[in-house]
Amino acid sequence: MTELRWYGWGDAAKTYRLDNRPGAWKFLRAALDLRGEERSLVCDFESVQLRPPRIGEATLLVALESNFRSSSTPADVFVQVDKRTRVLHAYGRSYRDLVRLRRGEIPNPPDAVVYPATEEQVVRLIGFCAEKDIVLIPFGGGSSVVGGVEPRDGRVTITLDLARMNRVVALDAVSQTATMEAGIRGPDLERELNARGFTLGHLPQSFEFSTLGGWIATRGAGLASTKYGKIEDMTVSVRVVTPRGIIETRTVPATAAGPSLLQFLIGSEGTFGVITQATMRLHELPKIRDYRALLFKSFADGVVAIRGMLQSDLHPATVRLSDEDETRSFFALREESRGWKGFTERIGIHAINALGHSFERGALMILGFEGSADAVSAEKARGLAVCQSCGAFDLGRGVARAWLRDRYETPYLRDVLMDHGILVDTLETATTWDNLERLHGRLAAAITGATELTGARALVMTHVSHCYRDGASLYVTFLARISRDGEIGQWETIKRAATECILANGGTLSHHHGVGYEHAPWMQGEVGAGGVAALRAVKEALDPQNVMNPGKILQ
Amino acid sequence: MTELRWYGWGDAAKTYRLDNRPGAWKFLRAALDLRGEERSLVCDFESVQLRPPRIGEATLLVALESNFRSSSTPADVFVQVDKRTRVLHAYGRSYRDLVRLRRGEIPNPPDAVVYPATEEQVVRLIGFCAEKDIVLIPFGGGSSVVGGVEPRDGRVTITLDLARMNRVVALDAVSQTATMEAGIRGPDLERELNARGFTLGHLPQSFEFSTLGGWIATRGAGLASTKYGKIEDMTVSVRVVTPRGIIETRTVPATAAGPSLLQFLIGSEGTFGVITQATMRLHELPKIRDYRALLFKSFADGVVAIRGMLQSDLHPATVRLSDEDETRSFFALREESRGWKGFTERIGIHAINALGHSFERGALMILGFEGSADAVSAEKARGLAVCQSCGAFDLGRGVARAWLRDRYETPYLRDVLMDHGILVDTLETATTWDNLERLHGRLAAAITGATELTGARALVMTHVSHCYRDGASLYVTFLARISRDGEIGQWETIKRAATECILANGGTLSHHHGVGYEHAPWMQGEVGAGGVAALRAVKEALDPQNVMNPGKILQ
Repeated sequence: MTELRWYGWGDAAKTYRLDNRPGAWKFLRAALDLRGEERSLVCDFESVQLRPPRIGEATLLVALESNFRSSSTPADVFVQVDKRTRVLHAYGRSYRDLVRLRRGEIPNPPDAVVYPATEEQVVRLIGFCAEKDIVLIPFGGGSSVVGGVEPRDGRVTITLDLARMNRVVALDAVSQTATMEAGIRGPDLERELNARGFTLGHLPQSFEFSTLGGWIATRGAGLASTKYGKIEDMTVSVRVVTPRGIIETRTVPATAAGPSLLQFLIGSEGTFGVITQATMRLHELPKIRDYRALLFKSFADGVVAIRGMLQSDLHPATVRLSDEDETRSFFALREESRGWKGFTERIGIHAINALGHSFERGALMILGFEGSADAVSAEKARGLAVCQSCGAFDLGRGVARAWLRDRYETPYLRDVLMDHGILVDTLETATTWDNLERLHGRLAAAITGATELTGARALVMTHVSHCYRDGASLYVTFLARISRDGEIGQWETIKRAATECILANGGTLSHHHGVGYEHAPWMQGEVGAGGVAALRAVKEALDPQNVMNPGKILQ
Repeated sequence: MTELRWYGWGDAAKTYRLDNRPGAWKFLRAALDLRGEERSLVCDFESVQLRPPRIGEATLLVALESNFRSSSTPADVFVQVDKRTRVLHAYGRSYRDLVRLRRGEIPNPPDAVVYPATEEQVVRLIGFCAEKDIVLIPFGGGSSVVGGVEPRDGRVTITLDLARMNRVVALDAVSQTATMEAGIRGPDLERELNARGFTLGHLPQSFEFSTLGGWIATRGAGLASTKYGKIEDMTVSVRVVTPRGIIETRTVPATAAGPSLLQFLIGSEGTFGVITQATMRLHELPKIRDYRALLFKSFADGVVAIRGMLQSDLHPATVRLSDEDETRSFFALREESRGWKGFTERIGIHAINALGHSFERGALMILGFEGSADAVSAEKARGLAVCQSCGAFDLGRGVARAWLRDRYETPYLRDVLMDHGILVDTLETATTWDNLERLHGRLAAAITGATELTGARALVMTHVSHCYRDGASLYVTFLARISRDGEIGQWETIKRAATECILANGGTLSHHHGVGYEHAPWMQGEVGAGGVAALRAVKEALDPQNVMNPGKILQ
């Protein structure tokens, strides 16, 4: 089993190499005004002090055992109260989380982590917590970047890790749906579905370390969402264990039986209960995956092309357009090609420049079609025609291949950048096409301005990556030199400015990261007082004692 | 302005002609075991006795005026308390509604009908009702077939007709969205959008007499939903005036900001508040509309073809497959062609039969593609190939043309059949593909069996008409001779058997008709006790006095 990096991303044995990207540091030093001596250290794991479990391990075990005694699998309940497990469940993986982990600041870890193996055990555990007024936090992969899994309550807290509830329960090849337990991780899920000829097509950047239940709880999106949909589009039905009993929505393709309970449970982030299983729409494993890169003369030209494709009923799997700043960075941070390949690459760049295109001022698009040979060939022809009419230069498959290969690696880069004293975070929103460029410009300006207030220079890069007929998401990566007066204070200044800019300019608080506690203060701005009242009413009806993941979504 | 038929469907000046359909009565007499002398009369409108408004007209006007006095358009508030208006707002248009109207049984009409012209007036009206404990029922076109607009409460009741709130507020041609007031009717909406080069693509059978707000309030679907989606897929955002204030969801293409408030307001049937406006996704007016009819050797073959098309990423606008009983009826009730056309038709039928196909035992499909010439031609080629691989015989465009021409006319036929002593109603559900044929068979058997219990013989016809990757809707039309011991009791026996069959066999209570009060007793079966608790909690939070359309969705 993979050993996880306790203070950062993913597999502790992996890192992101910058040594074969010769332009990277030069570019970053100039862009961020680095002096070169910045460093951020990680404390020794041994030096991390953790509050002892406030409920004695023995007491908890006895209490849980007595609760699980009548369970069908009594021996099959894991309880962990060791330091490493509690540290790994204390935070998600936001920038703020990593800063605190690196410093060893973990004042409020869960008191215990429980790994149920069956829904019945989940029911019993929730009953136990409600009875004892113990907080319960559902935990999938723990990759939340908005504070979705962090204990925020003074009460004794148990984290419920769904890792052992990871089975494919049933696959209906006729309806092309699969019923799966919520704790199944991306790679396991795709491996099992692929073996039967299917894919879910949900490929978030956290794919390797996130779970089906986590995706649903946060209304996530993957890089192929433009074809396969967001997780809420893929979900046929869910089962949720709440303190007031199990809610199961009907496994039907659509319904008019009142307000959508399904869509009210999706995105509930464990605040109503624990998602234990879900039935998902599948697609046949595509025969063809055709990914290529295109270079537009400007972000604006690329946006027109995407809109043109989506509004003429094309469904590329991936359509990802970087703005000029991200394109320039992508190019500066690319791997060096040597020998003949490097020579042809340099020739190619000259040719591209001669045609009036530029990696310095242009906008890079990754465009991927998936499906049957017939469908891909028809869609690709129509899609490329739209792009060419907007002045796109076809860079072919090489760049897209590199992007596909690295797509789950960039979270590792964050740890490397943090080691070098660089603040790095991402945020995202969505808006309608008519407002996209306005919001794009204002958001970049807000982040740049707020970063300057902290005495640093910002590198702000944006891409469009989840596209709809009526609009798209904007995904922003921002970097800055860590300011001496506090990494978290600096980050909060920038985050607040960005979030207020989004809400003031027609964006949504989040397109796929969720709310957690980081976005909770702005929920009234997002859904209004009436919306907050509706959310609070359901919360109180299903979880009257507020034991389920308190402090998330609503403050 | 169209004079509406007070006891039946639509335009009082229109009817459904059966005289040029020579096979119709012969077929119906045999299928329903009619004796020929059955008649059901409509009472004189003059003989209808209506309870006087329980709040005097003058009092009400004064009260309303005082409330509207500070409104920006004080003179612009219509209040109607005349008999005709109250009768037209007393019921929807279900079979049970029509039976009661024909008999003049209207014991609980609204006391007044108010036609606000602005959202501000709606806000004031809701405030007035909450203050005085007066029930308020939002009313669009009044075409509900599940009891969605009928007063069900002993309190004084005002019906809020949105007919005057019917403007296109804004059209965003870049994002391809339009913001419209909720009271706009289908033909007006499409006319205005078409003039700007767009369509919404929502074409329910009630199209001519239903409204945008009604479609959203009931989670409706139109005949082109397979391409354009159900109304919940088309809706970007809504504004709802509740007793606790206005809720407006953000106009963004997608969001991860917690549970979907938007999808909880869609389908709320006026029980939380009044939908006053919505922003909808549009499509460019299709350059090509290619509709044709196909004949399959069996319903099962046709189902395999639809599933094959949907699961290979095809999006026909319409794909509607009649089972063998509906196909036989369609053929028996068709218009007679005379002369040369009749001769070629008879020749054609012989040819079809010679190929092993039959209108007596086969299954008729209407298959329509819409979009750009390129897209339609590519989709049609792939779609027809799938159908042909399932043994379809292409009947060409004629039958489809007749179906398109008549698509809004069949509700008029219901009045004619009722005149002749025939019970006629429709119901619908949806399920996954693996369960479709099982549910189809059991549902037909349940309706047939229950009808026999009432001493009549049933004609049950089903089609699939709203299709998804994972399943489809089943739409059932059933006819029977009205039994002497009570039209409504007979209907209730059948409806109860059908609904219980649906819930026991993996269907949903409704795919697009909604809940109203007719389906309310089964909501716990649909969403469980936890689901009911969640719905009730939101209802109580937004409408603590239960003045908004009480008795609907939840009993």
